[in-house]
Amino acid sequence: MLLTELNPILQPAGKQHTSGDFSADELALANRNSGTLLETLQNDITPTGAHYLLNHFDIPYVADSTDWTLSLQGLFDNPVSLSLTDLQALPVISRTVTLECAGNGRRHVTPRWPSQPWSVEAVGTAQWTGTSLRNVLQCAGIKSTCKELIFHGTDRGVDGGEVHNFARSLTPDNALHDHVMLAWQMNGIDLPPQHGYPLRLIVPGWYGMASVKWLSQIEAIDHHFNGYQQVKTYVYRESESDIGTPVTHMRVKSLMVPPGIPDWSSRKRLVGPGTMTLQGRAWSGAGVPIQRVEVGIDDVWHDATLQQGDSAYGWCGWQFDWLATRGKHTVCCRATDANHQTQPLAPPWDTAGFGNNAIHRVEVWCDDF
Amino acid sequence: MLLTELNPILQPAGKQHTSGDFSADELALANRNSGTLLETLQNDITPTGAHYLLNHFDIPYVADSTDWTLSLQGLFDNPVSLSLTDLQALPVISRTVTLECAGNGRRHVTPRWPSQPWSVEAVGTAQWTGTSLRNVLQCAGIKSTCKELIFHGTDRGVDGGEVHNFARSLTPDNALHDHVMLAWQMNGIDLPPQHGYPLRLIVPGWYGMASVKWLSQIEAIDHHFNGYQQVKTYVYRESESDIGTPVTHMRVKSLMVPPGIPDWSSRKRLVGPGTMTLQGRAWSGAGVPIQRVEVGIDDVWHDATLQQGDSAYGWCGWQFDWLATRGKHTVCCRATDANHQTQPLAPPWDTAGFGNNAIHRVEVWCDDF
Repeated sequence: MLLTELNPILQPAGKQHTSGDFSADELALANRNSGTLLETLQNDITPTGAHYLLNHFDIPYVADSTDWTLSLQGLFDNPVSLSLTDLQALPVISRTVTLECAGNGRRHVTPRWPSQPWSVEAVGTAQWTGTSLRNVLQCAGIKSTCKELIFHGTDRGVDGGEVHNFARSLTPDNALHDHVMLAWQMNGIDLPPQHGYPLRLIVPGWYGMASVKWLSQIEAIDHHFNGYQQVKTYVYRESESDIGTPVTHMRVKSLMVPPGIPDWSSRKRLVGPGTMTLQGRAWSGAGVPIQRVEVGIDDVWHDATLQQGDSAYGWCGWQFDWLATRGKHTVCCRATDANHQTQPLAPPWDTAGFGNNAIHRVEVWCDDF
Repeated sequence: MLLTELNPILQPAGKQHTSGDFSADELALANRNSGTLLETLQNDITPTGAHYLLNHFDIPYVADSTDWTLSLQGLFDNPVSLSLTDLQALPVISRTVTLECAGNGRRHVTPRWPSQPWSVEAVGTAQWTGTSLRNVLQCAGIKSTCKELIFHGTDRGVDGGEVHNFARSLTPDNALHDHVMLAWQMNGIDLPPQHGYPLRLIVPGWYGMASVKWLSQIEAIDHHFNGYQQVKTYVYRESESDIGTPVTHMRVKSLMVPPGIPDWSSRKRLVGPGTMTLQGRAWSGAGVPIQRVEVGIDDVWHDATLQQGDSAYGWCGWQFDWLATRGKHTVCCRATDANHQTQPLAPPWDTAGFGNNAIHRVEVWCDDF
């Protein structure tokens, strides 16, 4: 069968923007991919297993990492194959990194592109342990003719009628950035299979698609990589005909721990009257500190207190004491980073719903429940 | 505010059966709760973090288990409060247990009750470590007037307009069953917060709602418990007026690892022609072995080979070699247990979509992709 015949079979109705209720395909993606439970924003590190998860294809089954190799191919002076043992003999580093899915917030971008319909929950912070990618690249020696490095995962599937392994590229400059790492542990244990066991690239500051899981090959090439996950998706486009801008770093953003207690099915929030501490997290992919978090109570903004973390690419905490009075309230949070980037009140437009960093709004009912 | 006023506020449109596309409330539940990734059915034990997760309310924040107590109250000869250290001094047991959400498969029960809209993925198997509940109950001495034991969690929220902590009851007979345990570890590590840290009841063979998380109190009472999670939900009802039958043990069921590779958005499956091994898992809540798994290829049934596990309440593996030929196929699996219980071809009817153990069907396209 020709690949061009695949799309009409896999998606007989085609893909087009939509609004309102969610299709069975969107629901299947939501059941499969999992968001961080917002109440775990109380933790500096997202509990293992509660970190958001977005996998395009199936998790490759790796019973044992003994035979895993990372092969460096193409424009290297010394193209090598490294085992996990080889990598683990290099200087070990641990870094706290916040990762967010580029499609986080997609369901609020109107009209909506039918894909994983995240609300706000596709973010998490983990401590990753591994070695600097730079160590490996410098040993292999990137030739001066190299324009990009492709990071190939072993996960394989179809998107847009193209069968491919998940793969993403970085320029040598970006790949040699001090914070980029090859990780084999998450929060002190071997990577869980769903997070890339046994080896994963971590690109701090970038949306999650750059942090390629199940990494098996780094290929140095003398041109721009035109793989599906590099040029067909993960591109900001204003219209279908727009050539667009690649999705790279995470936009500044904040989330709150939803106050009070939830209703099971509507997830609306109930609180009692009195003073309570609102809290949450804020982050920016720019590698600069969060300078300000504001809390909006019924459209009046107040400054929150910040607790800076110790990592340039990990989120920071914030809190604000709120005197809740009886009635319905809308509670929001908005972060601004040291580059003066801040969050918009409404979702930015993008054809595929990428990079939605609009403020987080929670509806709260206050009474003696 | 009166509690009776809550429901119209939280669910202004009311709750009624539906069909077709999925509402924003259903989607929010699907984003929050997470299913097992079906390809992890290759593992005897579901990887930590890939086990299904259904939490009614928020995860209670427990920074430290030092102060956690399990208090036994009511009709006990010796009502006691036990710390985690007290519990851990009792004989330690580890058991492999398969848990499934009672609402698994709800989205296929027509018309559909608007709640967590699981497809098929709300199941997982873990090794739980703790102590036998019987040890604790026998030390405390259940009085002869006790009719039920209520297990109270610390998670609190609203459902159907009722503010309550999650709580479920068992009869003394069921609670004294040899396999029921108080668990503080999952797969060799402390329970993750989202799985009940620091203490959880595990009731092997029953749907997951019986295995109360964040367990803080066991209350012995002389009547039937009429808490929300015991009588208002988790009841099989043929109609709204039906008094119904409580949901208890898991019905016999099987799932397969979807063969081949997926399409990202439709999750349809592509395989190449030739022989491949289909595999999956089968389980029954009856505590008896799975006797047979059949694989249906385009409505022709074949016997699969079974690999029995070593646990009465853990799933067993199955596999079947399939010679895939070019074209579209529907691949199914059906389990039968030693009690001759088997899976229906179509979902059984229940007003709230509980206990759907219909056969698992996967559409597969076979060609040279």
